[in-house]
Amino acid sequence: MAENRYPYDIKIDSCGEVLGERLSTSLIPTLKEIPADADVASHQLMLRAGFIRKLSTGVFSWLPLGVRSLRKIERIIRGEMNRFKAREVLLPAVQPAEIWRESGRWVKYGPELLRLKDRHGHEMVVGPTHEEVMTDIARREIRSFRDMPLNLYQSQTKFRDEIRPRFGLMRGREFIMKDAYSFDVDEAGAQASYNDMYQAYENIFRRCGLQFAVVEADSGTIGGSYSHEFMVLAETGEDALAICPNCGYAANLQKAELKTYPVGEAPEGPLTKVLTPDCLDVPTLARFLKVPQSAIVKSMLFTANGDDGPYHVLALVPGHRTINPVKLKNALGGDEAYLTDPQTAEEVTGMTKGFVTPIGAKVKIIADRAVPKMRTGVVGAGERDYHFTGARPGVDYKIDGVEDLAEMVAGDSCPRCETPIIVKRGIEVGHVFKLGVKYSEPMGANFAKADGTEAPIVMGCYGIGLGRTLAAAIEQGQDKDGIIWPMALAPYQAVMLPLEVQNPEVASAAEKLFKDLTDLGVETLLDDRDLRPGPKFKDADLIGIPIKVTISRKGLSSGQVEIKLRSTRELRTIPLEGAAKEVLKLRDCSLGKPEAGGRVP
Amino acid sequence: MAENRYPYDIKIDSCGEVLGERLSTSLIPTLKEIPADADVASHQLMLRAGFIRKLSTGVFSWLPLGVRSLRKIERIIRGEMNRFKAREVLLPAVQPAEIWRESGRWVKYGPELLRLKDRHGHEMVVGPTHEEVMTDIARREIRSFRDMPLNLYQSQTKFRDEIRPRFGLMRGREFIMKDAYSFDVDEAGAQASYNDMYQAYENIFRRCGLQFAVVEADSGTIGGSYSHEFMVLAETGEDALAICPNCGYAANLQKAELKTYPVGEAPEGPLTKVLTPDCLDVPTLARFLKVPQSAIVKSMLFTANGDDGPYHVLALVPGHRTINPVKLKNALGGDEAYLTDPQTAEEVTGMTKGFVTPIGAKVKIIADRAVPKMRTGVVGAGERDYHFTGARPGVDYKIDGVEDLAEMVAGDSCPRCETPIIVKRGIEVGHVFKLGVKYSEPMGANFAKADGTEAPIVMGCYGIGLGRTLAAAIEQGQDKDGIIWPMALAPYQAVMLPLEVQNPEVASAAEKLFKDLTDLGVETLLDDRDLRPGPKFKDADLIGIPIKVTISRKGLSSGQVEIKLRSTRELRTIPLEGAAKEVLKLRDCSLGKPEAGGRVP
Repeated sequence: MAENRYPYDIKIDSCGEVLGERLSTSLIPTLKEIPADADVASHQLMLRAGFIRKLSTGVFSWLPLGVRSLRKIERIIRGEMNRFKAREVLLPAVQPAEIWRESGRWVKYGPELLRLKDRHGHEMVVGPTHEEVMTDIARREIRSFRDMPLNLYQSQTKFRDEIRPRFGLMRGREFIMKDAYSFDVDEAGAQASYNDMYQAYENIFRRCGLQFAVVEADSGTIGGSYSHEFMVLAETGEDALAICPNCGYAANLQKAELKTYPVGEAPEGPLTKVLTPDCLDVPTLARFLKVPQSAIVKSMLFTANGDDGPYHVLALVPGHRTINPVKLKNALGGDEAYLTDPQTAEEVTGMTKGFVTPIGAKVKIIADRAVPKMRTGVVGAGERDYHFTGARPGVDYKIDGVEDLAEMVAGDSCPRCETPIIVKRGIEVGHVFKLGVKYSEPMGANFAKADGTEAPIVMGCYGIGLGRTLAAAIEQGQDKDGIIWPMALAPYQAVMLPLEVQNPEVASAAEKLFKDLTDLGVETLLDDRDLRPGPKFKDADLIGIPIKVTISRKGLSSGQVEIKLRSTRELRTIPLEGAAKEVLKLRDCSLGKPEAGGRVP
Repeated sequence: MAENRYPYDIKIDSCGEVLGERLSTSLIPTLKEIPADADVASHQLMLRAGFIRKLSTGVFSWLPLGVRSLRKIERIIRGEMNRFKAREVLLPAVQPAEIWRESGRWVKYGPELLRLKDRHGHEMVVGPTHEEVMTDIARREIRSFRDMPLNLYQSQTKFRDEIRPRFGLMRGREFIMKDAYSFDVDEAGAQASYNDMYQAYENIFRRCGLQFAVVEADSGTIGGSYSHEFMVLAETGEDALAICPNCGYAANLQKAELKTYPVGEAPEGPLTKVLTPDCLDVPTLARFLKVPQSAIVKSMLFTANGDDGPYHVLALVPGHRTINPVKLKNALGGDEAYLTDPQTAEEVTGMTKGFVTPIGAKVKIIADRAVPKMRTGVVGAGERDYHFTGARPGVDYKIDGVEDLAEMVAGDSCPRCETPIIVKRGIEVGHVFKLGVKYSEPMGANFAKADGTEAPIVMGCYGIGLGRTLAAAIEQGQDKDGIIWPMALAPYQAVMLPLEVQNPEVASAAEKLFKDLTDLGVETLLDDRDLRPGPKFKDADLIGIPIKVTISRKGLSSGQVEIKLRSTRELRTIPLEGAAKEVLKLRDCSLGKPEAGGRVP
């Protein structure tokens, strides 16, 4: 495995990576303090453990430990992409504006697109993604149906000029992404390519040793129901996921279909205007009227950005539910919508905020699926301190459209099998997506069919954020002492802590074991610093290498060394003789175990 | 070696690379025609063989074959850098302007620096190189002498906005470079780091299988004599190299010191103005006056850009020699100089072009080392159709400085051992360079010495152009039919050409051999296209894979296959049985042979 034809006693594996590293001579700058501007655990730990450093807002340098982990995930991804017949390419980071104009995104992408001019005044962008370049290659190189299926991927630096970069590598501006693009002759072919990538992504995250869920995701207005997100499960995740413990249904809450849920009843009776003093929120109003919150209709005015300018829409949900903004957006045909500010709301409706009523409203009204079932509900009265009771939907107020607007919560019914849903949090690390002809059509990427006619290529795209996945791995695997890496992503598989390195016996035992471990192909970090045990243990825990081997004078006196697993804190004392093989066994056991990583549910 | 736990019969090596590829299902778009705007062989061949495609001026996409070769050189570089204790990092492509202002290069770098503003109006650059970012990391992380020596490298996309990108990957705008930066406490340490990188680079280019020279290079005004260029030898190379076949001296002609060379004698006599009608160049004048060209002093007016604005200088060389612009620049303390345009020259000197004379000239005069030896030379007379004979340097005209200005030519004496020099052409693929404190001083990258005082870190930098090296490999290895890859850089090691793939016997023998080869770890491209033999052979030669295995019905009838080496065109017929092992042997022989690549002289 290791070749060593050249100077220095440094073993290199076939990928060019070092098998054994001495901490004292590398650049592994650990920090005791939590950096002030690091807002999530993974960001703090990657800084503290010396994996990354900030260069400017949302832009990071990768230090040696970080690059090791980065290369590992890159190799896992490369292997699985290649296994599923995707071919690696490498596309330019700096792209001409022309192709972005062709796709229409020069305008649509907005200020996140980092634009610039070269010395000759030509407009360029630093690519935030590569659909345009890929489609350009496809339209030049793909001539006929015989040239497909084709799937091209790359691992590349991209730039998105986020307005507020945050969470370290989770939402940085410059980031490394593996993006793949599939090209097929028809929908069926595109589906097969999609399935391949879905399977490849499962393999990738499993091999990374991560606990993940695959959820149905919102695919916006691009079309197709074939969008899935790969979510690393972590309590700190930005996304909420609906998971059915029975049938395996899993979806992003933005997408999770809420077919039905119970609503409450208010006492029947005619439409009556009642005084409701100081009832400024749903719970207070419910208590005051002695009705369940779910018998109150919440009316919220939104401003949406349509193709012909902004317009207003009144959205109705039962009082105990919230409107999911992505569901609302989809209900509006893809128009982004935001809550109308109070002043504008009063101008548009002539009503006081908090008391907006659908009764007599002049704007379009969209109601959540549950609203029509609220036969006699409570609605605002359009003026301060008054509400209507007994408001019948469709009778006392119009409903222009019924849509799935309410966000699913834990305990809601699974849309497939009606089992109560569990809600978990996750971090999106991968996304598989059907593009259809969204890019091939405007950019003229056509091919000749068997019958000689032309048709646009049917595309899919598939992305994994490399830095994001490492950050997610840390969010999933960490404790108060530091990172707990899965074996497959750890910068080194074992860390050796010789205590009292000045002691000749300790030093020589450590050197011998270091050699044995690297000879066996175990990637080992030797903490050869002349420090007290405390700081060495602290750093080892912080960096989070899976297997820790401690060599002390006391242990050696009985021919023993200590092995401790970072994940379980399991501690064993084993003979120095044969310790290397024992470590190898632990490594292989951990790397080979499918349980190390796995899909949930 | 290969694992195959997942679907498809695709073998993946430990770096994630595919061992066997089917041509029909990949993207290997070969071209018959020579692309119109490709100006050098490597550019033409990389386009024709489907390795790259142009996206915009000087910006290229790498297609699957190209990426394979790119990853190979990347792994070779990574292995050798790691072996010599350099540590891999990965720095941002987009960098803040601040650090470029600190180093002074925000202004000095000129229009090649691709500048831009982010959405908040902050000035940024797309990094053409990473001295600033590296020095920034060093000043934050290196505290004391104990933290050094340290050497950090990366393999990264860079952008230089060349005014006229050309020669394909040789002088593109976006390119991939491995850049390393060493940090030491003093000059001796920096020298040791330099020596390590020098050795690493020798190993790298040797392992690449390239014939290369290491030459002393001009290090401009940055200082130190420790700049070496690694040059892949090729007749098409941009650079000319002086090589001593005796002592091993090798230098870029820009740097090659011309200690002495013979000059001719003109008849002695007093300073005499003679009519020299229609003698508009040195050879004509020499013939007319019946003196050797080397007895004529060429006087050329240059305009130099000094810190206080442009100034003029008259440079003198013997008539049979040319002035090397880099030598002139160094003689002027680093000020760039260019030939003064005729009109300005006439204004400045009051003399007619072609007849400029040093006699009475009011500008500074710099003479090549040989000029003072031209005791009685011919010089211009300052007016059309007249020259002076018998002009004594230092007597009839002043000399303000004597410098090494003339370019060395083949046959000149080696500056070390006086053996006649050989001139070869080469392509610069690597450069090792001492930076000293050029960046650490202005950017305040200091460290605490053992005595507690502070000193600036002593730096070196070391670069290899990855795409450039691949292009150079092609310039060195190509013929009229296509590329001749060295084994180490070839996208695949063997290509299989089954002829008549429809024939079941041929198809099954090919599939069997394909499996055997990839099982043995031979990277194999199977040309499974149903084409006539002609186009298949043509494409195989064009792509340039080292070992070609042809399987034909005729050969199989006697149980034979044909093996042909791309480099030597050596052809052998061997039994199908055992052919895979034979190919493996050929591959290993070629990969292991140190003669495959080597340093010249």
